[in-house]
Amino acid sequence: MSDGKLVKNAAGRPVPTLVNGKEQVPYLGVGAYQPTGAKAAPPIRSCKDYPPDGDKRVPDLRTALEKCGLRSGMTISSHHHLRNGDKVGLLALRTAAEMGAKDLMWLPSASFPCHEPVIELMEQGVVHHIEGSMNGPLGRYTSEGKMRGMGVLRSHGGRYQAIQDGDVHIDIAVIAAPSADPFGNANGSHGPSACGSLGFALADSIYADHVIVVTDNLVPFPCIPWQIQGNNVDYVVEVESIGDPSKIVSGTTQITRSPDRLLIAEYVARFVREAGIMRDGFSFQAGAGGIALAFVQFLKEMMKEAGVKARFVRGGSTQYLVDLLNEGLTDYILDGQTFDLAAVASIASNPRHVATSPFTSYNYHGKGNFASLVDAVVLGATEVDVGFNANVNTHSDGILLHGIGGWQNCLFSRCTILAVPAVRDRVPVLVDEVTTITGTGELIDVVVTERGIAINPRRTDLLEAVKGSNLPIRPMEAIKEEVEGIIGGKPEPPRLTDRPVAVIKWVDGTVLDSVWQVEG
Amino acid sequence: MSDGKLVKNAAGRPVPTLVNGKEQVPYLGVGAYQPTGAKAAPPIRSCKDYPPDGDKRVPDLRTALEKCGLRSGMTISSHHHLRNGDKVGLLALRTAAEMGAKDLMWLPSASFPCHEPVIELMEQGVVHHIEGSMNGPLGRYTSEGKMRGMGVLRSHGGRYQAIQDGDVHIDIAVIAAPSADPFGNANGSHGPSACGSLGFALADSIYADHVIVVTDNLVPFPCIPWQIQGNNVDYVVEVESIGDPSKIVSGTTQITRSPDRLLIAEYVARFVREAGIMRDGFSFQAGAGGIALAFVQFLKEMMKEAGVKARFVRGGSTQYLVDLLNEGLTDYILDGQTFDLAAVASIASNPRHVATSPFTSYNYHGKGNFASLVDAVVLGATEVDVGFNANVNTHSDGILLHGIGGWQNCLFSRCTILAVPAVRDRVPVLVDEVTTITGTGELIDVVVTERGIAINPRRTDLLEAVKGSNLPIRPMEAIKEEVEGIIGGKPEPPRLTDRPVAVIKWVDGTVLDSVWQVEG
Repeated sequence: MSDGKLVKNAAGRPVPTLVNGKEQVPYLGVGAYQPTGAKAAPPIRSCKDYPPDGDKRVPDLRTALEKCGLRSGMTISSHHHLRNGDKVGLLALRTAAEMGAKDLMWLPSASFPCHEPVIELMEQGVVHHIEGSMNGPLGRYTSEGKMRGMGVLRSHGGRYQAIQDGDVHIDIAVIAAPSADPFGNANGSHGPSACGSLGFALADSIYADHVIVVTDNLVPFPCIPWQIQGNNVDYVVEVESIGDPSKIVSGTTQITRSPDRLLIAEYVARFVREAGIMRDGFSFQAGAGGIALAFVQFLKEMMKEAGVKARFVRGGSTQYLVDLLNEGLTDYILDGQTFDLAAVASIASNPRHVATSPFTSYNYHGKGNFASLVDAVVLGATEVDVGFNANVNTHSDGILLHGIGGWQNCLFSRCTILAVPAVRDRVPVLVDEVTTITGTGELIDVVVTERGIAINPRRTDLLEAVKGSNLPIRPMEAIKEEVEGIIGGKPEPPRLTDRPVAVIKWVDGTVLDSVWQVEG
Repeated sequence: MSDGKLVKNAAGRPVPTLVNGKEQVPYLGVGAYQPTGAKAAPPIRSCKDYPPDGDKRVPDLRTALEKCGLRSGMTISSHHHLRNGDKVGLLALRTAAEMGAKDLMWLPSASFPCHEPVIELMEQGVVHHIEGSMNGPLGRYTSEGKMRGMGVLRSHGGRYQAIQDGDVHIDIAVIAAPSADPFGNANGSHGPSACGSLGFALADSIYADHVIVVTDNLVPFPCIPWQIQGNNVDYVVEVESIGDPSKIVSGTTQITRSPDRLLIAEYVARFVREAGIMRDGFSFQAGAGGIALAFVQFLKEMMKEAGVKARFVRGGSTQYLVDLLNEGLTDYILDGQTFDLAAVASIASNPRHVATSPFTSYNYHGKGNFASLVDAVVLGATEVDVGFNANVNTHSDGILLHGIGGWQNCLFSRCTILAVPAVRDRVPVLVDEVTTITGTGELIDVVVTERGIAINPRRTDLLEAVKGSNLPIRPMEAIKEEVEGIIGGKPEPPRLTDRPVAVIKWVDGTVLDSVWQVEG
C-alpha cells in the first residue's frame, strides 16, 4: 500500500511519495507543476485484424474478455453514467472473477452504492484496489483500511489527464452503452437505458489497449451520434439489460424545500446578479443538488426580469436547464451528464443541448478547457475552512464517502461559489481546518450560507462589486463563530491513524492530500 | 531525393527503399503488412500555459507562426476542404517565406490549381517538397523532376494513418475554418466560406505539435458543432477571407450530358439492382463526378420503383444525395466532404447528415473503418488493366495529375465498381498494364464502360448473380480489343526516365508504386 515515505506538500499536507508502487509528485500549488513528455500512445491496430463486415459482436462478456487476453493484475475500467443503476461494472468484475482473474485494479469513473458487492471481490482477492471516486460503502471500506492497495481519487478532468498522460494504463475498458451498433459506435442518448452522454468513457475508448462495448439496445450501423467511436472498439456484447433505468435517471429532480437551503439558493442568485456576473452572454454551471436547482430557478426569474440571456449553461443537466434552453434564456447547454428524463429527452433531440466530455470541459493537460470560461459555478462541500479551503471527499469524522466529480475542475471558473449550509446535522460546515483538502482557498471565491455570504479577501473586485448591495456579506470567521456559539463549540476532531489509505489527486496529477485510516 | 535503391514489391513494381531520408516498407499485398508499435504521442500540454479566458487570438498569422516557433526544415500542414477556393494554405507558406523559413515540407491533404504559386516557393527554396495529393500544376512540376524532395501521395485514410502512426510528423498545422470561436473550436458547416465538414484536418489537430486555426467568421464561444476541438488548438487568427466561396463549393454539381457516360451510369445502376445489392438497408458511395451523379439519379428511380430504402449513403455529398435523404430514401448521409450549396445547407441543419472524418471512414490502422461496410462504391480511374489493376494518379503519358483521395480506401467496399469510358480523348482507358498502380485488381470487382461490363473473374458470386440479366457482361479483354480496333491500336507507352519523383503509398503506409520523371 503506502510503500514510500510521507512528505509535506505545498498545501501543507503530508502525502505519500509512492502510491501503489508508482512514484508521485506532491502538490506544488495551482499552476505550478510543469508536465513533460508525451501523451500515452495506444498500440497501432490494423483493419486486417477486424471483421470486414464491421460486425464485432461476440456471444458474451466472457468471450470478449478472453479475446482481450484478460489475466491477473490487469486494470479494468468502467464509467458511471448509469450511476446507481449500473449493472455492467459489476458484471465485468464478476465475469473476470469466474474466469479466475486475481489482483485486478478497477478504474471506474465513479462507483455507487450499487457497486457495494465489489467489497466481496476485494475480500476474495479478485480486485486488488480501486482507483476512482468511491461514493458510500466502498469509501467506508477504504477508510477502514481494508483495501489492499491505496485508493486514488481523481476529478473527472484528473481521470482524463491520468489516462491521457499514461499515469494510469487501462488494459480493458468495458463501456456500458444505451445504444450501440455492431461496429461499436455507441451513445448514451437513445435506448431504454438512456443516460444522456457517454463522455466519462471517452478517455477509456481512446487509450485502453482493448475496448468492449456492452449494450442492451443494438441498432443497425450507423449508431448516431457516435459519442464513442467504433473505430476504437474491439468487441460488442449484447446483454438483456445494462442497468435499472429508474436508478440511471430520476423521473424528475427536486428543488430543496428546506427554508434554510432555499435562502442559500436565493442569496447565490442575488450575489450573481449584484456582482454583475448576470449579464447578456454570461455563463454558469450548477449541479443537480437541491440548492443548485433552486438557485437556477431564482436566477431564471432574475434573468427574465432583467431581459438577460446566457450564452451557455453547463450541465449536469435537469428539467430546469432544459427549460432555460427551451425558453430562449440560453443559447446552449454544454452537458457532461444528464440527471433526469427531461434532460435525456433534450440531449437526444435538441442540437443546442450538446454532449461534452472531460476532455473538452475539464482536462487540465489540454490546450485550455471549458471550465475556466464559465462565469460562475455553484458547488457544494462537506467542509470549508477559514482559509477558504474546501473538502468534498470526507466528512468531519474523516470517513471517505464522496468522489471529487468535476468539483476540482470547476474551481477554475471566473467565480467559484460554494453554497453550503453553515450547519449540517448539527455538525458545523465552516471549520478551522478542513479534514481533507479537495481544493485550496485561492480558487474559492465566495461561500454562501444561510447565515451570510463570505467573500474571499483575495477577491477585492467582488467585494467592491457588491459594496452597497443589501446582501449579508460577512467575514467567514464571524459566520463560523456564530455557528459554534449556537452549537456549543467546534466539531470534534476526527479519530484517524497515521496510515494513508487513499490520496486525493489535484487536476494536474500531483498529490493534494491523503485520506487516513480511521481508528478501529 | 531517392537516396536508396529500388526493390520490386508484391505488385511487381520497382519502388525506392528510402524516401526523403526515411526507410520504406515496400507493398506486401492487401492485408499483408503487420504494423507494430504505438501511435504517435503528442506532447502533454497544460492549461496553465493557455489563457484562462479561453481567448487564443493573436493579431495575425505571422505572430501565430512565431509563437509556434517556426523554423527552417519544419513540416506545415493544411487541409483541402476549401478546394480550389483555398487561400489559407498559400498564406501560411508565404508568411513563412516572409519570415525567412527555408526547406519546409508542405503536407496538404490535397493541393489544387490555386496552389500553383507554391512552385515559386519551391524555386526559392522555401518549400523543399510536398507530401500530399498534387492535382494539376504541382503534379506536373513533380513529374518533370523539378521538386527537390520526393512527392508522397497518400489516400485520405493513408494520410490519417501516416500522421497517426508517426510516419510523418507535423510541426505546425494551419487549419482554415469557416467558423471558429476564440478558444479554437471550429467547424466547416457555418459561415460565409462554409465548406461542410473539416474532417481532413482532424489528424492534424490531434497530432501536430502546434495548431493554428484561421477563420473569417469568429463566433462567440461555443462554436457548435466543434468538428475541430479547441482543446487541441494553440492559436486563433482572424483574416478577411479564408477562401473564394464560389470555388469552395459549386452552386450546383452537374450530371453528365454525354450519352456514353449516361449509358455507363445506367449500366452501373442496373448492375447494382440486378446483382441484388440494391435491397432494403443497403448502402452505397458515389462521388461528385458527372457519371456518379447520373448513377445516383438512375438508382434513385429504381429504389423508388422497388420500394427500397438505403440505411446510409456516403458522400462526397451533393444535392442528389440530399434529395435522397429528404425524400426518405436513406436514413443517413455519412459525409466526408460537401460539394455544393445544397449539401452545405443540409449538413449544417439535418442531424441525419453526419460529418465523418478519415479516422472513422478510411484509416486502415484503426479497429476497422466504415469503408468495408459499404455495399457498393462507384469510382473512376484514368486507366484499368486486364488484371483489374487501376490508376487514378497519372495519365497514359505518365504525368502525375491527380491525387488518390479516398479512392484506395473505398476499394474495401463489398463491391467496387469502376465506371469509366472505354476511351477518353481518343486514349483507351482499358490497357494491358496500368502506368501507375493505385489499387490492385484483387480489390476491384466490376468495370463498367459504355461498351460493356467486365466482372473480375475472382467474383464468381457476382458473375452468378447477374447471370440471366440482360446486362452486357463481357470479358475485359474483349472490350479492350474492341476499343483498340476502333482507335487503331494500343496507346503509346509513356516516355519515362528511371528516376522516381514520387511514390504512391498504399493504405497501410507501404510503397505501392513509383511515379517516374518524364523525359524532358
